[in-house]
Amino acid sequence: MQPSRLSILGVGLLGGSIGLAAKAAAIPARIVGYGHRPATLKKALESGAIDESASSCKKAVAGADLVVLCTPVGLFEEMLRQIAGDLAAGAIVTDVGSTKRSVVELAEKLLPSSVHFVGSHPMAGSEKRGVEYARADLFQGARCILTPTDKTDSVALEKVDEFWRKLGMHTQRMSPQEHDRRICDVSHLPHAIAAALIAMQGDDALPLASKGFLDTTRIAGGDGALWRDILQDNRDNLIDALRRFRGTLDELVHLLEPDQREALAKWLDQAAERRAKLLAEKLRELNP
Amino acid sequence: MQPSRLSILGVGLLGGSIGLAAKAAAIPARIVGYGHRPATLKKALESGAIDESASSCKKAVAGADLVVLCTPVGLFEEMLRQIAGDLAAGAIVTDVGSTKRSVVELAEKLLPSSVHFVGSHPMAGSEKRGVEYARADLFQGARCILTPTDKTDSVALEKVDEFWRKLGMHTQRMSPQEHDRRICDVSHLPHAIAAALIAMQGDDALPLASKGFLDTTRIAGGDGALWRDILQDNRDNLIDALRRFRGTLDELVHLLEPDQREALAKWLDQAAERRAKLLAEKLRELNP
Repeated sequence: MQPSRLSILGVGLLGGSIGLAAKAAAIPARIVGYGHRPATLKKALESGAIDESASSCKKAVAGADLVVLCTPVGLFEEMLRQIAGDLAAGAIVTDVGSTKRSVVELAEKLLPSSVHFVGSHPMAGSEKRGVEYARADLFQGARCILTPTDKTDSVALEKVDEFWRKLGMHTQRMSPQEHDRRICDVSHLPHAIAAALIAMQGDDALPLASKGFLDTTRIAGGDGALWRDILQDNRDNLIDALRRFRGTLDELVHLLEPDQREALAKWLDQAAERRAKLLAEKLRELNP
Repeated sequence: MQPSRLSILGVGLLGGSIGLAAKAAAIPARIVGYGHRPATLKKALESGAIDESASSCKKAVAGADLVVLCTPVGLFEEMLRQIAGDLAAGAIVTDVGSTKRSVVELAEKLLPSSVHFVGSHPMAGSEKRGVEYARADLFQGARCILTPTDKTDSVALEKVDEFWRKLGMHTQRMSPQEHDRRICDVSHLPHAIAAALIAMQGDDALPLASKGFLDTTRIAGGDGALWRDILQDNRDNLIDALRRFRGTLDELVHLLEPDQREALAKWLDQAAERRAKLLAEKLRELNP
């Protein structure tokens, strides 16, 4: 079964790309979008990312069989409260949030039992934001993590899984707890570190930065409020990850001692090799 | 005055690119290359990066009016000792090393007074290595830092400056001490952090890494021995930079507290804005 009415709440880079990708995948749904800025909705309509716009999220979800929350996670609570009474019985709600424990807990608490919630984290995006950067192929070959709990309806889970697969994603499943812990290390920690690497620079050194520095800090080009929500929501895991990261820096400081020449070269080569292996795996996933 | 015989010691990515760029800039020099692997020299000859190969660095520098050291900095001492007696009177020696204090000190100590040394750091490169990645446009629009001291001959300095400018670089000058301190923050520290970010990953989280992680760690894909030399050579600055970086991480941990919502968003936005400004400046430099 495919959705016949798809509601996208928050028509930015991700929401807009879902609309474009759903059309490219020939999902025969009427796509309705909601966003708090009329100009954004207009752009989404013009680009074909949505078929119609709604003036409120309550109106946007009326009659929808699949609703995708695409706003920053910090706005989910308010949005779930607003739509709870307007969702059709049997409707499936999912999201694109980068953290899953709090989102799943909120949805299970705030949505009526007649509605099914399935947490999703499509791992695609960009440091750019706005529907003008939306792309039909944004999700192609990327991973999507689904985070079912004991309360998740298995049929709804299968439908959401199928939806992301139709958009080109590789899906996998884990608990919200496991998601937040593992994603912290490879996404939230790197973001925090990239931002700190910029923040610690003095005005005399920064102009000497070259391409390498820009690449290392690219992810820190993202929206502050959006990432504030993610980092604060995953605070416990992030603090633990920072503790372990500092431990690795201690190890590095030891390796800088003159008698550790061989060990430091080996440590650096091992890092390079792990990255090369990961890159090869990613390229295989993206271009099977 | 332009060099009539240019000697490149170490024909890898940088050495090979210097040869190709010198030809593209119509510098009318005969280019002789030395490398310890015959296969590399063969490739350099075939690609046109060098006009002739030498079987030793002593032979490579004979009669050269400009010599560029392009091996990893860890090999400079041995190489300077070897060539010291074979350099022509008046020859200019420069290098492409990423650290400058030790290199300049070594060169001033080991080279005869009949020869002029000028420290250079052309800030171009890649995590790739080998003459097969050499490109005539590698230096185009990038910065090159020259590090004169009290002992540097002003005519030689001007000639080396002109050489890099002919290869398309923006040159600037500072002391070896200032170079090592400033470059540490924007290049050596990011490299150390990128490698540590890979090293601290567990095998369960790493497969979930996406494009952002690969970008953040791209520079850590470089050669271990090469970067070992750089990081150990600049150990004092790196340890100080790591200390300041940890201070910034402390600041971030404080900003993760629930009552710091506004402050954290502002901190992240400021980092994004500084990066955006830097990126705009770099693009202007590269495409004036």
